[in-house]
Amino acid sequence: MNIEKIVKNIENHLELVIPKHPFAEVYKYGVLPPGKAFRPQLVTAIYNDFSKQRDLSFLDNSKTPVNYLASAVEIHHAYTLLHDDLPSMDDDDERRGKASTHIKYNEWKALLAGDGLQTASFALLSKFNGKNLSLMLKFFSWALGPKGLIQGQYLDLSEEMTNGIDELILTHQYKTARLIQTSILLGFWANEEERSSKDFYRISKELFRLGHCVGVVFQLLDDLTELVDDELTQHELAVNPWLTSNSDKCFNEILIDLEKIESIIKKENLVTTKAVLSNYFGKIESLLTSGEDNIVKHSKIDLVPVISLLNRINR
Amino acid sequence: MNIEKIVKNIENHLELVIPKHPFAEVYKYGVLPPGKAFRPQLVTAIYNDFSKQRDLSFLDNSKTPVNYLASAVEIHHAYTLLHDDLPSMDDDDERRGKASTHIKYNEWKALLAGDGLQTASFALLSKFNGKNLSLMLKFFSWALGPKGLIQGQYLDLSEEMTNGIDELILTHQYKTARLIQTSILLGFWANEEERSSKDFYRISKELFRLGHCVGVVFQLLDDLTELVDDELTQHELAVNPWLTSNSDKCFNEILIDLEKIESIIKKENLVTTKAVLSNYFGKIESLLTSGEDNIVKHSKIDLVPVISLLNRINR
Repeated sequence: MNIEKIVKNIENHLELVIPKHPFAEVYKYGVLPPGKAFRPQLVTAIYNDFSKQRDLSFLDNSKTPVNYLASAVEIHHAYTLLHDDLPSMDDDDERRGKASTHIKYNEWKALLAGDGLQTASFALLSKFNGKNLSLMLKFFSWALGPKGLIQGQYLDLSEEMTNGIDELILTHQYKTARLIQTSILLGFWANEEERSSKDFYRISKELFRLGHCVGVVFQLLDDLTELVDDELTQHELAVNPWLTSNSDKCFNEILIDLEKIESIIKKENLVTTKAVLSNYFGKIESLLTSGEDNIVKHSKIDLVPVISLLNRINR
Repeated sequence: MNIEKIVKNIENHLELVIPKHPFAEVYKYGVLPPGKAFRPQLVTAIYNDFSKQRDLSFLDNSKTPVNYLASAVEIHHAYTLLHDDLPSMDDDDERRGKASTHIKYNEWKALLAGDGLQTASFALLSKFNGKNLSLMLKFFSWALGPKGLIQGQYLDLSEEMTNGIDELILTHQYKTARLIQTSILLGFWANEEERSSKDFYRISKELFRLGHCVGVVFQLLDDLTELVDDELTQHELAVNPWLTSNSDKCFNEILIDLEKIESIIKKENLVTTKAVLSNYFGKIESLLTSGEDNIVKHSKIDLVPVISLLNRINR
């Protein structure tokens, strides 16, 4: 499966649709390059897995509707990062190895560009003209709104997240998994084939669950890879769940979620999605392996079982 | 025409749909009471003017689809105010006679609540299930996005707005008129009656122009009523267009726009919309009359011709 081709397609489309007014440079700086582009990869992969051809041939047409959905989720993601980094939120000076947008430009530009990117994500969604647009808009605005992603940000910033493992998982569910569920469901719903409503409902529910598991695992692994940094701030050391008495529970949560992911992938024969996830887990594995010394320095986590878990999906 | 009934209906619906998670109090504080509720009044009025009954009878049903559209524009408006007042933007400690949301709560809560309200405005839009939803989403996200409202904010914050009268009108067009155009067009499009596509297109274009004129007049009058305050900051004195050599041009712009507004109202027989505008102009007139001494203190504007202009719409 050609992951590089999928990512290149996403980057090209983002270049094309990124807002040009009123400050093209600020938007571009905040969106490109798109990091792992994990969410738009999922849109594309799931779409392909439920399409008739299943051969990624739609990638050759830049106007293919699913591209707008992939860009919509990535641009929505970018808005959350711009706002997250602001001084009154996480106050981060760096993002993806470069200065945060408000450091490079200024605060009001990062704030306003973030607002514009959120609105732009809905404009991109509106370019999908198919019969499921109304359903997509309902899910998108629910999952990323006050009852979803915003609630996750709230749990994080109010520090309720650090009250225990349940609050942590809940935060990851809202803050991370909702956007991943959106990516997966949009990819599925972009297929306009005839489908009995019973099947449509059943698969949607199953993919909702898949997105939940992928999102929570994604965030727990992200927390873990944070430990490969040589230097961590007091705050980072204090809130990382892998450095608390909950590290076993984090491991168990990953185990349970991966089992569920495997079972859904197998049942629905999600070949492309499996390739995207394997590629992602492979990258996490190299990161963890190369940074093992620092991880051991910060914690007592045994990496062997974690790495063997990451390999499950490749079997 | 019962304006009070329209406003009461809007307030009731806002109470009903305002987000309850994760911090109901912050959202409520930022949205209610909704100031003049001018934009949702326009949604309701235009909807009524193009409906079959034209008797506001739909107000008695809280689930009437147009209510969701009225709430969507007001909640979108509220998000822009929450962000506008933040220290890195306009840095305003007060809004509608009470402490700004970030003063009452804190900065990250005002920022995050603003983000949530923007997403919620799209969720409300999605509750309109009619055949024009896709068109509404396209216009809404265009008019309020990077090429619209966001560009207006940019012109204001970058101070390009103060370069001259053209830049001022352009800023008002983007920052104020786009949301008013959205309100008017959503109200029209919410009517699902059969209408020839030629008529649909012609009326949409005309209402787009109406919204432009109403928006620019609204903002120029807002600038003027600012002068009824006894004390103005140096900044307020420096940027108010009525205190520059452009005050004649502001007056002429209002004159031209009001003529256009009158002509469209007459042509399309917009009785409810006329009542909403008259009511609004009446309030501006009392404000200006009661604050005349301060206006004279700050400027040399002759109020008589302005007030006679405001009365035009009542003839």
